[in-house]
Amino acid sequence: MPDRIARVQQRLKAVGLHALFLSAPSSLRYLYGFTGTNGIGLITSDLSYFATDWRYRDQAQEEVHGAELLVAQRDLVGAIKDRNPLAENAKAGIEEHHLTYSVLAQIRKHFPKLELKLTEHLLGKLAAEKSPEEILMIKKAAQITARAWERLLPHLRAGVTEADVTAELNYIARQCGSQIEPFEPIVAAGPRSALPHARSSTRPFMHGDMVVIDFGCVVEGYGADFTRTIAVGEPDKKLREAYRVVKEAGELACAAARAPMKAIDLDAVARKHFEAHGLASYFNHSLGHGLGLDVHALPRIGPESKDMIPINAVVALEPGVYFPGLGGIRIEDDVLITATGCEVLTTASRELICVE
Amino acid sequence: MPDRIARVQQRLKAVGLHALFLSAPSSLRYLYGFTGTNGIGLITSDLSYFATDWRYRDQAQEEVHGAELLVAQRDLVGAIKDRNPLAENAKAGIEEHHLTYSVLAQIRKHFPKLELKLTEHLLGKLAAEKSPEEILMIKKAAQITARAWERLLPHLRAGVTEADVTAELNYIARQCGSQIEPFEPIVAAGPRSALPHARSSTRPFMHGDMVVIDFGCVVEGYGADFTRTIAVGEPDKKLREAYRVVKEAGELACAAARAPMKAIDLDAVARKHFEAHGLASYFNHSLGHGLGLDVHALPRIGPESKDMIPINAVVALEPGVYFPGLGGIRIEDDVLITATGCEVLTTASRELICVE
Repeated sequence: MPDRIARVQQRLKAVGLHALFLSAPSSLRYLYGFTGTNGIGLITSDLSYFATDWRYRDQAQEEVHGAELLVAQRDLVGAIKDRNPLAENAKAGIEEHHLTYSVLAQIRKHFPKLELKLTEHLLGKLAAEKSPEEILMIKKAAQITARAWERLLPHLRAGVTEADVTAELNYIARQCGSQIEPFEPIVAAGPRSALPHARSSTRPFMHGDMVVIDFGCVVEGYGADFTRTIAVGEPDKKLREAYRVVKEAGELACAAARAPMKAIDLDAVARKHFEAHGLASYFNHSLGHGLGLDVHALPRIGPESKDMIPINAVVALEPGVYFPGLGGIRIEDDVLITATGCEVLTTASRELICVE
Repeated sequence: MPDRIARVQQRLKAVGLHALFLSAPSSLRYLYGFTGTNGIGLITSDLSYFATDWRYRDQAQEEVHGAELLVAQRDLVGAIKDRNPLAENAKAGIEEHHLTYSVLAQIRKHFPKLELKLTEHLLGKLAAEKSPEEILMIKKAAQITARAWERLLPHLRAGVTEADVTAELNYIARQCGSQIEPFEPIVAAGPRSALPHARSSTRPFMHGDMVVIDFGCVVEGYGADFTRTIAVGEPDKKLREAYRVVKEAGELACAAARAPMKAIDLDAVARKHFEAHGLASYFNHSLGHGLGLDVHALPRIGPESKDMIPINAVVALEPGVYFPGLGGIRIEDDVLITATGCEVLTTASRELICVE
């Protein structure tokens, strides 16, 4: 992806770095198109290298663009060093949340005088603004996700288990065109719906349950992230009322979203609505996050975020409230944010659906 | 898991370390039972700590045993440091293939005089010997896997695509009792079957294809790893002959396996059989690997391995040959290796199945 690499090179220059080491799989896919799991990249002011091991030789020859391809037995950094890419005392950025100690040790060995700088978010910030091609892929993933949701609905009824629904959901997602299974879906019923990170259990859906279902289909590595909450039978009055407030919080956030804007300000729109209804303490996570080759990408949209939402950001907005022991409600949609407003990509209805 | 922690403490003493930092999710699950994705452990000569962030507070309270539980906002290492667990100049091991630069920086900040040692395989070697409970879980995963394979067979025929079969396979795996989807299955037909790491495409099965299908069901985190190769119609004579040699290589390796033995010697049994049939250069990967909470665990069973196979190791043996442009064959079974021999856990037939 030569234009993306050129943007990284501009950015490196702007922050006074001579190079950037890449080790996160999503970075290697974003910049070079590589979909394997083992590789190291180096971008300098005018060159670009990608090293992988022999298992990925054929795959890398087919996939990788925008870099000189190097294939090594084990020592990937050594293969890059052999190209003599950097001055001895250069300053290089690393992806500190992904770079492992063993790769760091390789870098230290081959480039002993290099000055290393923490730059995890340099690439993440560039990638927050989506290209027209990326927007098309995420739109497709969002459409497939909404279609899978419609096809899942007839399977939701009292007596089915969380695990049954998860299996059905993954099967339907593939049939609708998801290229891999969604991230492990959350299907959480009754009191378990109050756990934002619950995993599917063998608990059956029961009358009175709220059920939170959180999943997303994947197209060319870009995943949607989508949640709906349904009721089994007639829900508790408190939960029905809370559902309305969660739905309104999402709608208010959509109405307020435009770019560029501070992510914290968008989070505040939803948070204030919960406050006005006495629910702020039950909304115990961020409003949302960017979407990309990682399901949780920049910008972070939360009460402590310092991120900006750039034009053409695609983000998941997921207001929710959780009453311990009773149940939870979350409604999550993926939206494209432009200079003029916000387009909802996951177009499924947000009305409360009660099944029997 | 107090007995596992005690074994780590014995081992630390034996190699002259005062402590071990744990960061790999599989290590945290193995030693503490934690199934989340963010946590740091520290085992000292007589104490054990586990720190996670507030999102996992309730889950960790339920799951974690054998450690003092610490919940922090972000700085997990700081939360451990506050318990004053180590002398200033202590020597501590790290898991160098998992520890990220950002956690390393936290360790350096809070324990500036600590001497850090590379010890990735210390825990992996202990974990290579399976407990009776672990063997039961892997046996169950292997049984479910063999049952899923039997149920998949009627879906295999000319015209179905790799992606169709992958979707069907994941659905059947869940129905058979796999607690999560298997690792992304490999379903690779025709010339694509010659790529050991192929991903499912929309290519349909065609007459003359060999089709490699590689997957494994999961029980309590323990996954089986299983491969069969089928033919669509009548296979090329060279492929049919190679199938026989691959099957024999697996059978010879099973017959030779007992513990303790050098892993390289077991690899050699299969490799020599391929040599005798002029196929050694087409068998371009290791014979196998240990199974555990990671699908690829110790011992490594390959031509360069220095690992020992301990008593009660559970390993995947996966002889295969790959003819570029024509097709590949792999047959993979999971076996328990004891002092007296080898028990095959994935009991599906290894005869060549030809479908229409």
